[in-house]
Amino acid sequence: MDQVKVIEIKKSVFADNEQDAENLRKELKSKGVYLLNLMSAPGSGKTTTLVKTLNHIKDKVRVAVMEADIDSDVDAVRIKLATGVPTIQLHTGGMCHLDAEMTRQGLDNVTLKDINLVILENVGNLVCPAEFDTGAVRNAMILSVPEGDDKPLKYPLMFTVCDLVLINKTDVMPYFDFDLERCKQNILMRNPKATIIPISAKTGEGIDAFADWLLNEVQNWKL
Amino acid sequence: MDQVKVIEIKKSVFADNEQDAENLRKELKSKGVYLLNLMSAPGSGKTTTLVKTLNHIKDKVRVAVMEADIDSDVDAVRIKLATGVPTIQLHTGGMCHLDAEMTRQGLDNVTLKDINLVILENVGNLVCPAEFDTGAVRNAMILSVPEGDDKPLKYPLMFTVCDLVLINKTDVMPYFDFDLERCKQNILMRNPKATIIPISAKTGEGIDAFADWLLNEVQNWKL
Repeated sequence: MDQVKVIEIKKSVFADNEQDAENLRKELKSKGVYLLNLMSAPGSGKTTTLVKTLNHIKDKVRVAVMEADIDSDVDAVRIKLATGVPTIQLHTGGMCHLDAEMTRQGLDNVTLKDINLVILENVGNLVCPAEFDTGAVRNAMILSVPEGDDKPLKYPLMFTVCDLVLINKTDVMPYFDFDLERCKQNILMRNPKATIIPISAKTGEGIDAFADWLLNEVQNWKL
Repeated sequence: MDQVKVIEIKKSVFADNEQDAENLRKELKSKGVYLLNLMSAPGSGKTTTLVKTLNHIKDKVRVAVMEADIDSDVDAVRIKLATGVPTIQLHTGGMCHLDAEMTRQGLDNVTLKDINLVILENVGNLVCPAEFDTGAVRNAMILSVPEGDDKPLKYPLMFTVCDLVLINKTDVMPYFDFDLERCKQNILMRNPKATIIPISAKTGEGIDAFADWLLNEVQNWKL
């Protein structure tokens, strides 16, 4: 099996994460690197979405992936095998989120001079990651149909801080009590400016729209 | 719409949660109250499972429910309406888990003299709640089929601390790449003593087995 580099992340000692995140964003801007922070609950399909999307964009942008998990490297290995994109695994040692300093520990292990886009797959958790600015240009999240259209009511901060919400697993919508319009309303109640894209990482539906959003972001971002 | 009592939980000040949890368990034992801590990722079907199970057991045991969420009271209202069981809503004010002292703040609002079983629906999160003993007799969790059979690999502590794992949404198994036997192996790797019950809260399959487990626990628990 393909090997991926595994980085054991250490707890941050910085008190002011917001300032640290701002500094990281500026550093990355000076290097021409766009960082996307991708969040979701466990099992929403982050990795499958990434595999499909990376294969769509890898010839158009120089991209790398940082996979954060409590344990295991199954996702990082899968992404590297399925896409060939440079991928490293971050282990949080039980920690429930990444902040800017922890993100930097990962980035120190990516050869940034060859890269324009880094996608950070955060720990699967709808609570804690929402509280910490990672230094990313944008926050994106995946909400999957089986989780239910009421999640923005219960996890308000996550939906408030995300610029993009992908609604994944639309292929199984007939088997669940999920109302797409109600879901969109619930998301927009938390963040009226959110971009919402329904996708099915399994069938590929909507992946082109996510890829277009991402490529446009990388080309046009300003601090 | 039916109203439920909403309790705003305050952060604990106790340093030694394990001792505090042990004390709470003894207090509850002296009152004849069995506490179950039910955990899962967001959207795994905790509330639907509870509704079905409560209607199965409410004539056999005097049960109350504490619903913990970051925000909203939709789940508590739904349980009260659908089962008539005494239910209160705990708001964690953004906190990602409950510890023993926070659980006690909820229990202070339940009329325990009429109750033999309290079910605590913890915050939807596979990371943080696993780290804190709530004072419950048992930890149970729900893993739903759409989340994937690999979750015990990525969230080791949650599966290690749970005595019971309900595998929910078995009715949609044909539409997902989910291997029940591999899932069971992954769970037992984390906790060889775990009881595993496949259920479908939607169709009711397996609810009787969970109800039997629960009634047997309440009748026979020892400290």
